[in-house]
Amino acid sequence: MEIKVLKNILDVNDQIALQNRNLLKEKNIMMINVWASPGAGKTTLMLRTAEALKGKARMAVIEGDVASSIDTETLAQAGVTAIQINTDGGCHLNAGMINSALQNLPLDEIDVIFIENIGNLICPGSFDLGEYKRIIIASTPEGDDKPHKYPLMFTVADACIVHKIDLIPYVNFDIDGFTRTVSGMNGKIEIFKISSTNGDGVETWADWVLKQLDNYRK
Amino acid sequence: MEIKVLKNILDVNDQIALQNRNLLKEKNIMMINVWASPGAGKTTLMLRTAEALKGKARMAVIEGDVASSIDTETLAQAGVTAIQINTDGGCHLNAGMINSALQNLPLDEIDVIFIENIGNLICPGSFDLGEYKRIIIASTPEGDDKPHKYPLMFTVADACIVHKIDLIPYVNFDIDGFTRTVSGMNGKIEIFKISSTNGDGVETWADWVLKQLDNYRK
Repeated sequence: MEIKVLKNILDVNDQIALQNRNLLKEKNIMMINVWASPGAGKTTLMLRTAEALKGKARMAVIEGDVASSIDTETLAQAGVTAIQINTDGGCHLNAGMINSALQNLPLDEIDVIFIENIGNLICPGSFDLGEYKRIIIASTPEGDDKPHKYPLMFTVADACIVHKIDLIPYVNFDIDGFTRTVSGMNGKIEIFKISSTNGDGVETWADWVLKQLDNYRK
Repeated sequence: MEIKVLKNILDVNDQIALQNRNLLKEKNIMMINVWASPGAGKTTLMLRTAEALKGKARMAVIEGDVASSIDTETLAQAGVTAIQINTDGGCHLNAGMINSALQNLPLDEIDVIFIENIGNLICPGSFDLGEYKRIIIASTPEGDDKPHKYPLMFTVADACIVHKIDLIPYVNFDIDGFTRTVSGMNGKIEIFKISSTNGDGVETWADWVLKQLDNYRK
């Protein structure tokens, strides 16, 4: 007797994530999934990244929020191609939402898509969206203990951005200890130290993005 | 024909929340559910609150974290009664977890229990734990737009703490605009402006907690 087991929601999500991945491969677009707490500075980093990539790669942003379209308005005003997803209370983006967003973006005019996931260090880590790389932003005012408290994302991310480094003199953040902890949890992770307020570290980060785009297109 | 509808998880949670509420009433203990982003300073606020309540009310903390027991160790070292719940990846505390914690606390020696919920501005807002009051902490480095992006918690909380006000000179946070927005979303919310680093605003907040305890016990 054959027992039929229904596929769970993650399997369905993974199927659509694969469709997204295939579509992006066909269009030669690299997609990066960006994870962070609320208020870690995702949108400001996107603005700085767009400036740094100007003339080198055409960038778009898929903006995930529980509610509002503030960030998409900010990006659009700065001339960055952006599209908003509202989850209406939902705590993460799923591959189906990204699929809809991709169908509404001018894919023939884009090289890199960043997904600003919902501000949440837990739930988004369990959902593949079809991305090529995953980035976790850790903001210095949040303290240096986040990798211990929210280990999953730090363990599976390809890169970690220590953000708001200009605030280090005013907050309790041991950057060397943080770097050691994260490297210990994830031997392959790349760590970038950035202030989107004064621009420190943005060029190094943008160079890494361009290098990933080269690797993706090889 | 009668159609049977299975109760959903929220109903089950609500049943246990009611049990918690009844147990606390019997023991004359007020419980406050504290919501915030990762790194908004929940534990530091708990330390300051314990100092301010000393000799006035006996306080305990139920510490929720995805992983680790760093915060409970910090509280215990400062002499605050604390118990740790690890959700092992789970994004919120539920009433059953709180029920287990209550069974492991010395309830006859406690007047006020604070629950430090998981650092997450979304999921915990949907789960009643049996608390008497709900508090949302908004940390200034997160920016002043959080009420627009994560409206549920700001709409249903009894009080909002604007935390890390000592960092306002270094970050982009319009405190008057923030206060107007939150008051507009929730006409009954009380707003406190606190720095747990230098102690500003802690006394006013502690007085409010004691007033709530009086009201609860009337």
